[in-house]
Parts: sequence; structure tokens; C-alpha cells
Amino acid sequence: MNQITPVPSGQVGRSVPRLEATGKVTGRIEYTHNIRLPGMLTAKLVRSTVAHGRIKSIDLSEALKVPGIDRIVTSEDILKIIPVPYYGPAFHDQPILAIGKVVYVGEPVAAVLARDPHAAEEAARLVVVEYEELPAVFDEVEARKNKVVVHDQLKPAGTFPDLKHLHGVRDTNVALDFQLVRGDTKKAFAEAAHVFEHTFKTQQVLHLPLEPYVSAAETDGKTMTIHTASQSPSFVRLEIARLLGWAENRVRVKAPFLGGGFGGKLYIKLEALVAALALLTGRPVKISLTMEEQFYTLTKHASTFRIKSGVNKDGKVIARECEVWWNGGAYADIGPRITQKSGFTAAGPYDIDNVTIDSYALYTNLTPAGALRGFGIPQLVWAYESHTDLIARALKIDPVEFRRKNLLRDGRPQATGTIVKDMGAEVCLERAAELLNWNKPFDRGQGKLRRGRAIAVGFKASISPTTSVAVVNVAADGSCTLFCGTVDMGQGSDTAMAQLVAEVLNIPTESVRVVHSDTDVTPYDMGTLGSRSTFHMGLAVKLAAEDAKNKLAALAAEVGVPPGSNLPIGELFLRKYKMQAGTIVGSGSYIPSYTPPDHANGQTDNATPFWMVGATGVELEVDTETGHVRIERMINVADVGRSINPRIVESQLSGAAIMQLGFTTTEKMDFEAGQVTNASLADYKIPGILDLPEIMSNVVIDASQHNGPFGAKGVGESGTFGVSPAIASAIEDAVGVRLTSLPITPEKVYRAIRAANNDPLED
Amino acid sequence: MNQITPVPSGQVGRSVPRLEATGKVTGRIEYTHNIRLPGMLTAKLVRSTVAHGRIKSIDLSEALKVPGIDRIVTSEDILKIIPVPYYGPAFHDQPILAIGKVVYVGEPVAAVLARDPHAAEEAARLVVVEYEELPAVFDEVEARKNKVVVHDQLKPAGTFPDLKHLHGVRDTNVALDFQLVRGDTKKAFAEAAHVFEHTFKTQQVLHLPLEPYVSAAETDGKTMTIHTASQSPSFVRLEIARLLGWAENRVRVKAPFLGGGFGGKLYIKLEALVAALALLTGRPVKISLTMEEQFYTLTKHASTFRIKSGVNKDGKVIARECEVWWNGGAYADIGPRITQKSGFTAAGPYDIDNVTIDSYALYTNLTPAGALRGFGIPQLVWAYESHTDLIARALKIDPVEFRRKNLLRDGRPQATGTIVKDMGAEVCLERAAELLNWNKPFDRGQGKLRRGRAIAVGFKASISPTTSVAVVNVAADGSCTLFCGTVDMGQGSDTAMAQLVAEVLNIPTESVRVVHSDTDVTPYDMGTLGSRSTFHMGLAVKLAAEDAKNKLAALAAEVGVPPGSNLPIGELFLRKYKMQAGTIVGSGSYIPSYTPPDHANGQTDNATPFWMVGATGVELEVDTETGHVRIERMINVADVGRSINPRIVESQLSGAAIMQLGFTTTEKMDFEAGQVTNASLADYKIPGILDLPEIMSNVVIDASQHNGPFGAKGVGESGTFGVSPAIASAIEDAVGVRLTSLPITPEKVYRAIRAANNDPLED
Repeated sequence: MNQITPVPSGQVGRSVPRLEATGKVTGRIEYTHNIRLPGMLTAKLVRSTVAHGRIKSIDLSEALKVPGIDRIVTSEDILKIIPVPYYGPAFHDQPILAIGKVVYVGEPVAAVLARDPHAAEEAARLVVVEYEELPAVFDEVEARKNKVVVHDQLKPAGTFPDLKHLHGVRDTNVALDFQLVRGDTKKAFAEAAHVFEHTFKTQQVLHLPLEPYVSAAETDGKTMTIHTASQSPSFVRLEIARLLGWAENRVRVKAPFLGGGFGGKLYIKLEALVAALALLTGRPVKISLTMEEQFYTLTKHASTFRIKSGVNKDGKVIARECEVWWNGGAYADIGPRITQKSGFTAAGPYDIDNVTIDSYALYTNLTPAGALRGFGIPQLVWAYESHTDLIARALKIDPVEFRRKNLLRDGRPQATGTIVKDMGAEVCLERAAELLNWNKPFDRGQGKLRRGRAIAVGFKASISPTTSVAVVNVAADGSCTLFCGTVDMGQGSDTAMAQLVAEVLNIPTESVRVVHSDTDVTPYDMGTLGSRSTFHMGLAVKLAAEDAKNKLAALAAEVGVPPGSNLPIGELFLRKYKMQAGTIVGSGSYIPSYTPPDHANGQTDNATPFWMVGATGVELEVDTETGHVRIERMINVADVGRSINPRIVESQLSGAAIMQLGFTTTEKMDFEAGQVTNASLADYKIPGILDLPEIMSNVVIDASQHNGPFGAKGVGESGTFGVSPAIASAIEDAVGVRLTSLPITPEKVYRAIRAANNDPLED
Repeated sequence: MNQITPVPSGQVGRSVPRLEATGKVTGRIEYTHNIRLPGMLTAKLVRSTVAHGRIKSIDLSEALKVPGIDRIVTSEDILKIIPVPYYGPAFHDQPILAIGKVVYVGEPVAAVLARDPHAAEEAARLVVVEYEELPAVFDEVEARKNKVVVHDQLKPAGTFPDLKHLHGVRDTNVALDFQLVRGDTKKAFAEAAHVFEHTFKTQQVLHLPLEPYVSAAETDGKTMTIHTASQSPSFVRLEIARLLGWAENRVRVKAPFLGGGFGGKLYIKLEALVAALALLTGRPVKISLTMEEQFYTLTKHASTFRIKSGVNKDGKVIARECEVWWNGGAYADIGPRITQKSGFTAAGPYDIDNVTIDSYALYTNLTPAGALRGFGIPQLVWAYESHTDLIARALKIDPVEFRRKNLLRDGRPQATGTIVKDMGAEVCLERAAELLNWNKPFDRGQGKLRRGRAIAVGFKASISPTTSVAVVNVAADGSCTLFCGTVDMGQGSDTAMAQLVAEVLNIPTESVRVVHSDTDVTPYDMGTLGSRSTFHMGLAVKLAAEDAKNKLAALAAEVGVPPGSNLPIGELFLRKYKMQAGTIVGSGSYIPSYTPPDHANGQTDNATPFWMVGATGVELEVDTETGHVRIERMINVADVGRSINPRIVESQLSGAAIMQLGFTTTEKMDFEAGQVTNASLADYKIPGILDLPEIMSNVVIDASQHNGPFGAKGVGESGTFGVSPAIASAIEDAVGVRLTSLPITPEKVYRAIRAANNDPLED
């Protein structure tokens, strides 16, 4: 027997190379796109060409003439097997295929099935759908006026107990209205020395994982197996079980490695459709979307944020009023939960006694919007940190100093009333300032090239209620297998989770095998989202490993091995089972304690199990003749509690910051009457290597989250928080113009400079 | 949420239809033969044409000219990646491919790899191997004389602690010699009124599952996945890990449904070879044997059993001497454990004070022999029950009455000294006698058609030490998933195990999903063998379900639900997790208590956790002009403790009896100089529907195994025990001739009749 030899602690905190690294670079890793099932049909989708309309007729006759077409499915077929075919995490509002009407351009209306994807594609183009067009609404502020109403009926799902009582009203576009009231804003504004009000906007952008959406289903009519690039297999399982009226264990959802997710592959996307098509045809069915089709599937919320602050004579913010309009697109997806969860931090990481927040989840006739790396927070930080710098500038206070005056510190109540602990905003701000040499003179350039700098800080609550469960099996030679529903989509979770097991059991990380999400196998996990895995699943994994460790200790006692003997685990098995035999099974389950906010005023004494904090400092140069912005230096600082794997944490910070840089400077979906006009990677520009900051540092604060696994907490989003406002404020620092809507393109900068010089460009 | 509704107890004891029934009849069930992996190569084997010889040369030149041949592998290549490439459960004696010499006809010498199996097959025929032939030994009694020695060196594996100290001696063919001594046989024989001695023989027969041996392997060099039709995935995992020098969790073994096993697919067969080939080529490799190749892979032990009894004047057996020679073929496989485990019951289910047993595991130059439905017991029962009837006949005592005088009853010591409990031999005998109307007059026919009847009883110990582990996951809607390494090879174990979980948790059996053996997923199980699953794995499953039930009770207490509220399980999850979320993980591990036999005299106070007992009664008609035997009626009675699923138990008894009927009447491998001469199903005859008894009853004794799960114990083999001796004794009852070697063909019967009439047939 090759027994695993015990090692001392130190597995956590070590930059263990990723367990899947070799497999990835040698092309051996399994992705859903590679799946071929015997007799499998491919489905191609016929999509709506109007933003809002009634379906008058669907003519399949020409399409059915294409050789090799197996079947063309519309909602009429779906309704025969699923009587109420509406899905969604927060609202059951999205039909598997459009029923009677369409509410955005690109909405799936029919599915063409064939063995040959090319035949299916050709036939899909030949399906003729006639619409009666209806007036449409695209802007979130317009949508709030309810002149055009997207849905006749609101269908809250009841999935999330924290959203109860918050859902909107019939005959409006308001899916959810989150309200928070703390103190007496009216009185405080009246007493303020200065009042500032600004409005900021963000645009529709995309998740754009390099692996587009893909799902396949196979069924024998009794059980359903779904192979899917999903961040939330457990949710897919229960949603498919609900739609079919089946027990959860009749549905099996398998997610291998993902080629990126960023929130796009959460909850349920193609899975209900492939399941229905597999049931209808009795054959395995796969749908692989194209890059273009990602533009018709899910976006990040565009938003409008009106923020108003009252400041006293000492530069202390005493009142803040926030109104946020979230453009949820045609279906709610997780928008309502984003609206509520981000809503309560809309006033920023500041210590303000009087706060009101109104956060609206709105339906419009655009591609549905969902969670995208930050769960709404980057949109909010963009606004409140731009606002913060504008106030500081107006009051002629150094912006770092102004933040110091107002920062929310441990022990003080956040806007919900929850007392803050391990929040780290101050230390992130100070570290960023230190690394930028904030106190040293800064050369702002001259001539056409001007330089500016800025720092911004954002924070985020974690999600709750939310549950993770893990199992650790110890084999007879001491090697371990971890069953963990966390989906490794590139963030390195397999390695980090293995490190937690290894640390608890004093074995090398490399001797822990991680089994990928398969709902027949891996226990429940809410989903790989919101930077929750390291903390929530990490705690479940730690508990599971500790359970295994306790059972090993009991085994040692049973076979007469004294504690601390440091005998290889395999020896205990040999003594107990007389052979190389047996498995020790440890399990752990974690749900944080949590108090849902009072639905009248958003107050709660326990809003979140932990806070995430990130600060970004930038130094940049603006070419005043072209509007081009060159980012010379970007410093991303985050309090991650303790790094389980420093190298992975650093790449998380870096990846998040670069992603947000794209959203800040180049990315934007262009629409014309609801139709995306730049639905390709040629026209929709994500950052290339030349767009990156010349110097980028990703810095982790050496802290400890009191309730985290070995002091760790989430890090996947913190790098996004400060990027947009820091860039906008640094541009203002350089050239004196303030941009209030994203993206900050050279054209916009140039136009702003010209306008500031009273020489505006014509459109 | 579609919650699972609680049901009252009664899941155990119900003939629940098999969970996989629909999948099987609709052709949806997954078998290893169906597996295709991307880029997969097929290997065809070049096999030895001599029974014993040195390999002088292997010429691949012609074979390599066949288009499409990827590579031809010999032991030279294997040795480069596996320095000690010998495998086996009891001895590490079998090379992955022959090294330097061959020891039986059909031994794999080289593997030809190609994408196209036909190309590989063609090339395999063109490989020229030159041998220097050596003298060979085929008969087990001859082998004991060690004139020809098969292996220069004996390589006990040390896997099974109960085999330690028993292995044989260098330069002999004795792999293991099990000796049991109880009382003083010599003295008792001297005191006996009558002494009887007979010798019985059994032939080589085959497992012949309709799914022949098949395995496939894929590897990235870091982990190895093996898809295999195996009855013992956990053993394959540890054996492959041992060969490669890897940790167990780097090897994943997956076994879907099996198309029959019967002991043939135990331990390790093709798996080491496909693993080595996958490592050598970097490609997935599959080997699917043909029906013919089953004849070169594994047989049932041929045996010679000399049995001698001393009987006192009251018809009580007071001394018994047993000498059993097991023809293990060229490699030990599990033969040594069979030799030991069956060895200690060789004196039969009789209460005899003075017993000696010698049981030899012998190497010969034939196809290796392994476990085949009964672990040696049917060979022993054949002998000791034939012997019993011969004694009764000689003493003119009714054979049932003679057994009544001598049967081993609960509370009395068996030959090992272990006090017998829940053994049931008496009740089986009495029930068989009752059902055959033993006390009523029996018409023995006249003219050429003569009738006879007989009853035989056999017993078997269960295996120990042996371990099973199970996990039960409860989902948020109350549906359950059972992780259980027991391989469903047609015996219905999935259904029975699901019934155990359902009984404990008060849910319908149909709401339990059983996950198939996958060593990344299902915890350790020693193997699906020796009728151990219902008892050993059944206890582990019951413990796991009880663990889950306890955790559910704790959950209920936590959320304030009083005991006995009968609330659906899903409600508890909702109250705890606030959403449809979470998994309860229950685990259970079972190893029976056991005392290894003293290696000097085979004595132990705890030989087995339970005993299996089966009796068969037959009424048959012999055509004295042809030797044809028509079985009019066969009654198989078994004590199974309590039936978990009566219909499945009945089909187990029936299947076992029919299989043994084949071994008794038609099946026999014919050899010429070690070469099988009837290696096809055209020439090797298994029973067809017309060969079956006209009436067959399978009867279960309503008993309870004190330590079994809900009173149950194993049943897979009990139906085989009495068949052969009952048929032979009934033939003697009909026509007065006694056959002492299997199979009992019409020719043999006819020859015996002629010989008895002093009119022997010429050969």
C-alpha cells in the first residue's frame, strides 16, 4: 500500500499550483461543449425579431423541407408536457419558449432539431414568425413610469425568503422595490451645510465567457440527466424537478469545468429547454449557443443612480438619499435579489446616520439582465465613489482625507443597522494611498498629455440565506476525495477547497481529489456566485474534513493508537479493517445566521455573514487631443481575510479589475429599437493586452475574517469595485472633466474636454 | 416543491418491481460494452498456444504491416512503466502480459492496438511467437505430486489476513494448504462400526455471463479512469493503485450494470492491462473479449474430493476425513481463499466430533480458476451429500432419517469449533422432505423408464474479514440517493438496497435513487461476491439510513418539530434552510466481528457472521435405453433469514439451481494437451429451456437472521448447493447406479447402467 504520509500544517496560505493545470494545458479537461451522446439531436433556436409583440403565426412549412430535420418545437408542444413552463430564480416569469407574445429581440420562439447542426441552423432561418408589434420600453427610468408595461402579470417565485413582501405591483414594470430608511434624512438635509446631487448611469454589458452557454439533456422518461455549463447545478436540479413535477433525485445535473461564468451561467438558462426537448423527442438533445447568441441571453444590468448627500461644515456626510433604477430587461432572472442585496449598501462604506434608499428592479424590452461579477455593486460603487470625489473636489478637501472622515469602521452600524465587523475599508484605502504615494507630489503633466490619479473604495455584503454542504471521503491509504458542488469555472476553487481539506487532515493538497458538481453525487450547494464559495462552501468543507478527522480519531482510539502518534491514516484502516479496506465519510453543512431586513425600512441586526472590500488606485494619462486614456498604474487592494492560495487570490483580483476595466472603457451593447447592433466580438470590444494598465499590482490585506475558514473570505468580485470611479476621478484630476456615464470611451473624453473648453463637437 | 410523502413501514418484505426494469426492457441501461471514448483504441490479444513453455521470440513484423495498427505491446513495454507487473487478489502471480514464459494455453502474450477492432484482430493473428515447450500438468491430484512445477516462485499477496501462514511451499504447486483438525479422528475411526470412503470429482466449467469480460481505461498520466464490468470496483482501484504506485484516489473505477458476473468479474481481470495500455499510448484503450476468450480467462475449480466417514452402530457419524484437491489452473486468483473458506465446511452440515480436513489450492497448466457462485461449496456438497446417500443406502437407513440423526443444529459446534446459530439446515431438509411427500409411497416406474428421488443439503459460511460502507443523501424534498458499491449484475441488489433505505426512512422505495459503483463516488465495498451484499452491504446501508434518520431527527428538534409528527422531510429542510436547500448525509460502515482460524488446526470461535443453507429435492425419470434423465420436479429450499424482496429472492434461488443444473448435467470444458477444444457456445452446452425441470419450486424458509438487516441474509448461492448430489442420488434411487464425477451426461448414465448390468460399452 502506498500510504499518504502525514505533513505538518501549512497547506493553507501556500500557492499550490492549480490541481487542474496540467489537464488544462494539455487539453484533457472535460467541458460540456465536448459532450456527444448516442443519437443526440442538436437544437437551433428561432429568435424573436421584435422587442415586444404578439405572435400571430408561426409557419414551419419551408423549414420542415430542409433534409434531416427531426422536429420543430414551439411552446404548443412544451405545454403538452409541462403545463406551467415558466422558470426563473426570483420570478417564474420566463417561458421555455415564447407563449403568445415576445418581450425582447432574441427571445427564443421555436427550436429546430436535427442530427446535423448545420441543417438545424438552415431550417431555423426558414421558420417564418408573424408578429403584431406592440410599443416597447427600453430605458429603466422610463420603465418606472409604466407607460408601456412589459408583463401583464407578475409571478414572484417565492424562492428567496428575503424577497418576500418586496415584490412589485401588477400592471407596472416594478418587479421589486427595496426601501431602506435609517434616521431622518429630511431633517438632516435641512441641517446640512452643503447638499450635492448627481446622477450616474451604466450601460448593458456582457459576461462573455469564452465558453458560451451550452446544455445537453438525456432522459428515459423516469430520470433526466442534464450536462450543463452551469454555476448552480443544485438550483438547476430543483428547478427542473419543479417544472416536471418530479422528485429532485430523478433529475441529475452534471457540470464539468466551465470556461468562465461570471454570473451568466447561474440559475437556469438552456437547461429547461433541453430537458423539454429530450422528453418530447425521446432523444438526447444539446444546445450550444454561438458567441452572438450570448447577446440574446443575459446582460449585466444597466442602471441609473441618483445620489444626493448632505454634508456638515466639518466635511462629514450626515444625510444620503439613493435612488437606483435597475434595467432588468425582459425577465427578472436574479435581478430582484440584486436589487435588494446591493440595495442596502447603495450609500457606500460610509458612516452616515440618515439614509434613504429606493432600489427598483424594472422590466424593459431588452435582453434579460442577471448577476455579473459583483451582484450590482460595481454599478453602485461607480456612482457613490464618483459622487464622493465630486463632493471632495467641491469642498476642496483631499479625496482620501474626505473618505477618512466618513469611512465606516468596525463597531459602527451600517445603513441596515447591522454593526460592522472585519470590514477593512479603511485599511484598503490607506494601503492604496500608501502604494500610490498619495502624500508625495504628483506630476500632472503638461501640454497635450495630462496626468491624474484617484482612489475609490467599494464594499459588498455576502449573500444570505444560503446553504452549502460538503462531503470528504478518506480512502484506506489516506488519500481523500472531496465532494463539493462548487463549480470551478477558472477561479481555482478546486485547489483552494483541496487545501482546506489538506490543512485539516494534515495531508498534502495534491493527495486530495475534488469531484465535480454532479447532483447525484455532490451534496447541495446554492451556487458558485457572489464570492460565496471560499467562505460558505469553505466552511462546509472544513466542517466535513473535521468530521472525517473526528471519525479518524475515534478509529485511532478504537484500534488503540494514542492521540498525536502521527501514524499514517492508512495504518488505522489496516488495524481496523484487517485489509486495505473501508472509507471514512465526513460531512459538513453551513448556513450562516441571518436576520432578513424589515420589509418596511430595510433594517436588520444581521445583514450578512461577512463584508467584502476592495479599493483601486489609478494613475493615468489623458491625451487631450484624442481623448485617449493610458492607464499607467493600477493598484487593486482587497481585504480577503486570509489568502488560502495567494497566487490564485492575486489572479482573482487581477481578473476582476481587468474585467471591470473593459466595462469602464470599451464595452457596451448598442441597441436600435431593442435590437443589439454589435452582437459580435468584432464590434463589441473587450480589453486586449494593449488596453491593460502598464503596471498593475494586486495587493491582499493581511487580515482575518473572524468567522471564515482559517480566516478567509470571498475575493472574486472585490477587484471590480473601485475601478470605474477611480478612472473617472483620475480623468477629472487630469483634465478637469467629469464623466457620469459608462463606458468612458476616448470619444466621450474628447467631447467632454471640448465641451469644457466651450468648443463642443457636433454630433 | 414536490415533497416525498411519508409512508408506513412495509418496504422490506414487499416484491417491489426492480427499479431498473423499465430501463432494461427499453434498452436504455448503460453497459461497459457500449462505451466509446474519444480517440479510443481497441486491443486484441495474442494468446499462448502452448500450455507450458518459454517464450523464445516474438515476431511482430508481419502484424505491424496491417494498415491501421497503432502499436503492439508486449511485457517488455509493460515493464518500462510497471516494474513489478504481477497482479491477483491472493497471490501477485499473474503478469499483465506473459513475461518470459507461458503457463497455460490462452495466456495473453501481446496486445495489438488499433482504432479498428478488425485490423487489430487480423494483426493479432499475424504475430508469431516461438515457444520452447515444457512438460505440463493438468490434473489436480497429479499436480500435488510436484513432478511438474508451474511456478518457480510463490508470491502470496498478503491481502487477506486469514490466509497468512497458510500459503504453500516453494518448488511445489501448492499455493495454499488449509488444515483443520477437530477431535481425534484416528481414534474415532478405530472405534467406528462402519467406515466408508469415496472419491468424487468435478470438472472445469465456466461463468459465461452473456456480457463477456470488458474494460476500458483513460488517463491523463495523473489520474486513471477505468470503466469495467467488474464485481469489485474497490478492489480494482486498490490493485491498479498498487501496480502504478499511485494513491487510491488517483484511480477511478466505474462499473455500470453488469450483464451477469457469477464470480468471474471479481478482483482484477482486464483492468491492469487496459490501464497499462492507456498509459503507454496516451489514448483511451478498450478490450472486449469474445465468448471464446471467456474460456481462456477464468473457470470454476475442477476438484477431487476424497471423503471418509466412520459411523457408529446407531448410524451416527463419529469421524470424517476430508481431502480436497482444487485445480486452480495457472494463476491463483482467489483460489487460495476458496480453499480456506470452503475448506472448513468440507465435512458438511453434520454434527461430527472428530474431523480432519486437508484442502489444497493447486497450480496446474490450465485456464486459471476462480470463484463461481458458491466459492467452492457446490463442489463440496456434491461430494459430501453423495457420500451421505451412499452411507445411508449401505446402512439401509432412509437418507432423510440418516441426515436427521446427524444434522448440525443451532447451539452445537461446527468443525471449526464455532457454535452454530440461525443455521437452518434441519428446517430446510424437513421442508424439502415435506414438499416431496417423502413419507408417502413413491412410484419408481417400470420398464425402460425408471423414477427416483433424493434430497441433499448444503451449507456455506459467509466471508470475513470484509468491509462495506454506504452513504445515504437526503435531498431537500425528501428524496434519497444511496451510494453503494454493490454492483447490480442482474441479482436485483439496487432494488433490495433501496428497500432497506426506504424502510428506515419511511419513504417509498421508488423515491430512493441508487448510484452505481464509481470509486470516486461510492464508498468502499469489498465486492459483490459470496452472497455477502444483502447482509454486509445491507447492514452498512441500514446504518447509513439510520444515521440520516438520526440527523433528520436532530434537524426536527432544531426547528421545533416534535418527534412522531410525521411531517414530510422536505418541511424540515424548509424550516432550517429557509429555502429548498441542503442535503443530509448519512453514512454507515460494517465489518463483522471475526476470529481467524488457528493456522495449525483451523479452529476458531467465530468463523463467520452467518451461515447460508440450501436444500434441493428432485424427482426424476431415467430412460434406461438412452441414459436420458428427465427432471420432473425440483424443489429448492433456502433459509434466507427474511426476504427483503420475495420475488427477487425466488428468482435468485431459481437462477442458482438452473446454473448448477447445467454444471451437473451438460457443462464441461474439454481439454486436449491443455487446449480447450469446445470453446464456443455451440460446443459447450448450457441448459436451454427444454433442459429445465418440468416443475420447479423455490421456497424460502420464514426465519430471521439475528444479526442481519431486518433479519435478512444472503441467498445468491444457496440454490446451487443441493442440486448435483440430489440428481446423482435420485438416479441411483431410480436405476441403482452411482456416478461420482460431473457432469452426469446421458452417455455416462447409459454406460453406468450397462456396466452395472455387466455389459459395459466399449469406449
